[in-house]
Amino acid sequence: MTMELRWDPLLGEWVMVSSVRRARPWLPTGFCPFCPGAPETGYGWRVVVLENRYPMLSPNPPEPSKHRFYKTGRALGRCLILVETPEHNVDDISDLPVDQIRLVLKTLQDVVAEESRRDYASYLLWFRNKGVEIGVSLTHPHSQIYITPFIPVRVKRELRSFKMYLKKTERCLLCDIIRVEEEDKVRLLHSTPTWTAFMPFHPHWPFEALLTPRRHVQLLTELDHRELGDLALMLKLVLCGFKNIFRKPTPYMLVLHQAPLKGNHNYYHLHLEIYGVEREENKMKYAAGMENGGGNFTYDTSRGERGGS
Amino acid sequence: MTMELRWDPLLGEWVMVSSVRRARPWLPTGFCPFCPGAPETGYGWRVVVLENRYPMLSPNPPEPSKHRFYKTGRALGRCLILVETPEHNVDDISDLPVDQIRLVLKTLQDVVAEESRRDYASYLLWFRNKGVEIGVSLTHPHSQIYITPFIPVRVKRELRSFKMYLKKTERCLLCDIIRVEEEDKVRLLHSTPTWTAFMPFHPHWPFEALLTPRRHVQLLTELDHRELGDLALMLKLVLCGFKNIFRKPTPYMLVLHQAPLKGNHNYYHLHLEIYGVEREENKMKYAAGMENGGGNFTYDTSRGERGGS
Repeated sequence: MTMELRWDPLLGEWVMVSSVRRARPWLPTGFCPFCPGAPETGYGWRVVVLENRYPMLSPNPPEPSKHRFYKTGRALGRCLILVETPEHNVDDISDLPVDQIRLVLKTLQDVVAEESRRDYASYLLWFRNKGVEIGVSLTHPHSQIYITPFIPVRVKRELRSFKMYLKKTERCLLCDIIRVEEEDKVRLLHSTPTWTAFMPFHPHWPFEALLTPRRHVQLLTELDHRELGDLALMLKLVLCGFKNIFRKPTPYMLVLHQAPLKGNHNYYHLHLEIYGVEREENKMKYAAGMENGGGNFTYDTSRGERGGS
Repeated sequence: MTMELRWDPLLGEWVMVSSVRRARPWLPTGFCPFCPGAPETGYGWRVVVLENRYPMLSPNPPEPSKHRFYKTGRALGRCLILVETPEHNVDDISDLPVDQIRLVLKTLQDVVAEESRRDYASYLLWFRNKGVEIGVSLTHPHSQIYITPFIPVRVKRELRSFKMYLKKTERCLLCDIIRVEEEDKVRLLHSTPTWTAFMPFHPHWPFEALLTPRRHVQLLTELDHRELGDLALMLKLVLCGFKNIFRKPTPYMLVLHQAPLKGNHNYYHLHLEIYGVEREENKMKYAAGMENGGGNFTYDTSRGERGGS
């Protein structure tokens, strides 16, 4: 079995390599491993956290292969599945009652608190993939948690930007952006007393949303009762907004960007990013040669739309 | 009309924003704008370079919108289409004779030489998207050229890695990698006296190849007659290898990473990257929440395969 980290010296980033996932079986039609009563779920839960059966990372990974030139590392960490409801036939997390979404987030908070104590846990990335269009095969509402022994590349780049901005202005970049978005209003999607959601001025995807707490906090565990409830509401409102555009479910990715679990990162400001990938009905935005090979994104805006104000 | 660059202050990168592309018409069935005799192509060519009719960048872009907080920039540059053959019914560049592929590359060299002289040209990215699976709608063999006023993010990151490696070792990172790959052999795909192609030790995509000239060169224009011919051959061999795995055409992205057009970057080493996105027959590798939201890739290796040696 191979399960290891391999360092890409050209880009300077880790790749998670595993042979475990290749072993994923074809599930019999009609069987859902996330439904109540499945071997790993049991009964009596409203939300359940499962170990990913085909993980890229593990608390007890095998020794990595050694190479005289290339750098490898132990695939220390954990991959979890957050099953968001016992009900199989719900299409999306946004179709759940706000209370249930709140419970999902509360459970996630507990996982963050628990995993923060592990030596190997450098970062906890929560993400959600929605839609067969982006490869989701199990439709029972669920999201994923990766506890990684490294800080994900995009978060690292954000940390750098926040640090530089603070140094230059003595302010927080996202606190400033919140102020700008609340003033401009044109890109605002929703706001509550504790959260604000807007479409970024510089979107990478056709329908992109940034959700952020007004309070300058770094970790999900810092959110209080009210803030967590407001996030649940925001998620429902923004994701239902996406569906309303197309008057049907639409594929998206969602990711939580919080601070690394270890060390002091009080210059950082937690937020969630949602990438809606459908640009017009049944037409997807594909990240292809420019995006994956060059790294920069193109964004098709509607004619005459002005970003400025 | 909007056509501008917008700076993403969180990631620290430019997004190319344009309303021009939204105007792309639905082409009548059976009409191909890249065939000989189409309004923009004419007759009598073996390879032709066209202006992209719906560009993200232009030598004469409109003034960008102004914003008191967000940074914008002029969308200076150029987007070109490289039509690789007059024959519509060829499936892929790798189905062309090596001589014709050589002509494609020679034409590209001419474009690099020509565009290097423009003030706005900071970088020239050549890339090729293959397959409806990744959004390619026009099947007539063609690739794309973006001349950008900025250095693409991934190239920037590579430049940094090469610089750091040189400082540490006084050697070139890719020269060293070539040596390692030639010794290890297990990941080698093809080699000629002037080029080598291998599967990286740290792949991001199911079938990934890195093609590099043995000689430490920075720009496509530096390749001599023989090196250009060998690259044509390598492209054919590697891409045909991809097809042989599935015994049918398979979707991929290809990108040329060369040095920026301005300044001295003699620490860098030109190469091409090819990303095959099909992991098993008709099963795609999707870059989703982890890859797009976190930035790190997962790679499913076959059971028991060892990267080390």
